[in-house]
Amino acid sequence: MPRSKEGYVLTPWEVSGDIDYDDLVDRFGTSRIDNDLKKRIEKLAGDVHFMLRRNIFYSHRDMKWILDEYEKGNKFALYTGRGPSGHTHVGHLMPWIFAKWVQDKFGVDLYFQLTDDEKYLFNFDLEMEDTHSYALENALDIIALGFDPAKTHIFIDTDYIHTLYPLALKVAKRVNFSTVKAVFGFDNSTNVGSIFYTSMQSAPCFLPSDREGKKVPVVIPCGIDQDAHFRVTRDVAETIGYYKPALLHNKLAPSLDGTGKMSASIPKTTIFTTDSPEDVEKKVSESFTGGRISAQEQREKGGEPDICAVQNYRYYLFEPDDAKVRSIADRCRSGDLLCGECKGMLKENIKSFLKDHQERREKARSSLEDFLLKD
Amino acid sequence: MPRSKEGYVLTPWEVSGDIDYDDLVDRFGTSRIDNDLKKRIEKLAGDVHFMLRRNIFYSHRDMKWILDEYEKGNKFALYTGRGPSGHTHVGHLMPWIFAKWVQDKFGVDLYFQLTDDEKYLFNFDLEMEDTHSYALENALDIIALGFDPAKTHIFIDTDYIHTLYPLALKVAKRVNFSTVKAVFGFDNSTNVGSIFYTSMQSAPCFLPSDREGKKVPVVIPCGIDQDAHFRVTRDVAETIGYYKPALLHNKLAPSLDGTGKMSASIPKTTIFTTDSPEDVEKKVSESFTGGRISAQEQREKGGEPDICAVQNYRYYLFEPDDAKVRSIADRCRSGDLLCGECKGMLKENIKSFLKDHQERREKARSSLEDFLLKD
Repeated sequence: MPRSKEGYVLTPWEVSGDIDYDDLVDRFGTSRIDNDLKKRIEKLAGDVHFMLRRNIFYSHRDMKWILDEYEKGNKFALYTGRGPSGHTHVGHLMPWIFAKWVQDKFGVDLYFQLTDDEKYLFNFDLEMEDTHSYALENALDIIALGFDPAKTHIFIDTDYIHTLYPLALKVAKRVNFSTVKAVFGFDNSTNVGSIFYTSMQSAPCFLPSDREGKKVPVVIPCGIDQDAHFRVTRDVAETIGYYKPALLHNKLAPSLDGTGKMSASIPKTTIFTTDSPEDVEKKVSESFTGGRISAQEQREKGGEPDICAVQNYRYYLFEPDDAKVRSIADRCRSGDLLCGECKGMLKENIKSFLKDHQERREKARSSLEDFLLKD
Repeated sequence: MPRSKEGYVLTPWEVSGDIDYDDLVDRFGTSRIDNDLKKRIEKLAGDVHFMLRRNIFYSHRDMKWILDEYEKGNKFALYTGRGPSGHTHVGHLMPWIFAKWVQDKFGVDLYFQLTDDEKYLFNFDLEMEDTHSYALENALDIIALGFDPAKTHIFIDTDYIHTLYPLALKVAKRVNFSTVKAVFGFDNSTNVGSIFYTSMQSAPCFLPSDREGKKVPVVIPCGIDQDAHFRVTRDVAETIGYYKPALLHNKLAPSLDGTGKMSASIPKTTIFTTDSPEDVEKKVSESFTGGRISAQEQREKGGEPDICAVQNYRYYLFEPDDAKVRSIADRCRSGDLLCGECKGMLKENIKSFLKDHQERREKARSSLEDFLLKD
């Protein structure tokens, strides 16, 4: 049932309308990440990531069991992914940055899937050469975040299909058209590759177990829009001899126009990791804010940081310090901080992040082979 | 529409009832192999195979175009296959023996697909280890027929998936659920692997072109039950830059009980290539014949070779000499030949064939690697 009664649409391939994240927890049957769980994570990790503190990662499946197992010495593996339909934007980095934090704190392996087959099947205008080449470009962004090559395994579906296909077949044999119709909203006009595809996204859940020769718990940090795939996976996992994967769900990064999630299909409201400083200047300058019509009115009434895309960007990604985020919001509300100055601060944050990231991204070209799993 | 108005069922996975082969030509929109086409083949090949002469290969698609191209110096490649759900039976050998004749006469390459993925997906009780191991066993039967290793390329789907998957995706993107529902009779309870599978059977149609770097015409000798897959393939082939595959359809080998096609699921009416001489003795002894209740009645009224499974076996597979087949039928009709003697002749034919075949089959174990394509 992809369209909720609230009127928003959320599937792995379409997000529109005003997403009600609380409603999703109820509809999908997930659990909220409560204070007890955050405290347990903090105790084991030594600190708590701002994305957990701010409830950007806000929902989960089976994380209590994962921590129980971890405490018994049974390490989990991380699995996340990316659909390479274009260049990476900063919203994509959210779960990756979080995954890196988990990897560092818990000392675990990360499996990173680049689904060039998916993006070819679901986008009429993309050829396989396109999605494969974006996959390699996206891999540079992953590596640029500083993942440990000894513990980080990136694979492109069509390059690693020899290993993935038998795992996908095990899932595919046990999932019928009724299920994918209900879960993803497919119909008779859906192509048979797209119908099969969810099996390919399930396969890496079982890869750590196959590679290690024993049942390995898996945690998937991902956008809540991807949960659909793993509901299917979880229904078949035990039947084929594996643990159900656990999940950590994040809310989707906001767009710069304040209307919804950041989307690569609307480049002018989205910051790509390949953007130039001029791109950043222009996009942030034109972004939607909670400011008033005139500087005078804003000084008198104050701005509205809660509906401001600039403040949202800061909150979701570019300012880990809660006190700073709060102080900026306070200055905005009081009329002390005008949009021009506020945008200027965000521009500097983003430009400085991208400068470093783009340097590391270019260096990553030479270490790509250290990360890529191939058949 | 897998069930015809005549009440028989014919899909790639189910054959039951009394198949009306003429009706199939009309329903599927294929062409009969007429005398003109046989003469053209005879002219190019130097002779005409008994399976063509007897209309066992009786229907085709685009063979006139294939011969036009061949005459212009544009060679075709052959493609056929086998679903490895068990040991090979002699009925399976029919299109393979014919393919070998075509290979020898026209000097062309043969691509042979072993669909271990298909048989895993469509058979609840088979594991992937089973279908993969049957695939290797079936490959021995192919090699035992004497194919030229320089021109014969056998591949098992899960072993060659790196090459096949991108080709399958090209097809899968352009075939929707409506189509596979109509063509194969799938419904909402069909698993998503089976729904995708037809793309995998399409993929080898384009393999010779990809390997040779130019558009290569392909001819598929196969049972008419497999035509459904290639109707789908032919609808997308030109869109993705290849020729439509041409086909040569054979009628299905009869069972020993006279009720339908030879089927591995009813072992006692089916001769497997691994059967012992004792198995052959027993199965042929118990087979359905066109004989009368008593020897006396048969001597008086004569037998009915047209409904006789023993005579059918001879006709389809074990006696290439038309005059001999006719003379045996005449002796049966006249009451001169009784079933015991007639069965005795078939037993000797089969035992002698299997003795040689099994020797070559064992030798094939050491040359398997010369034939297998792997990623």
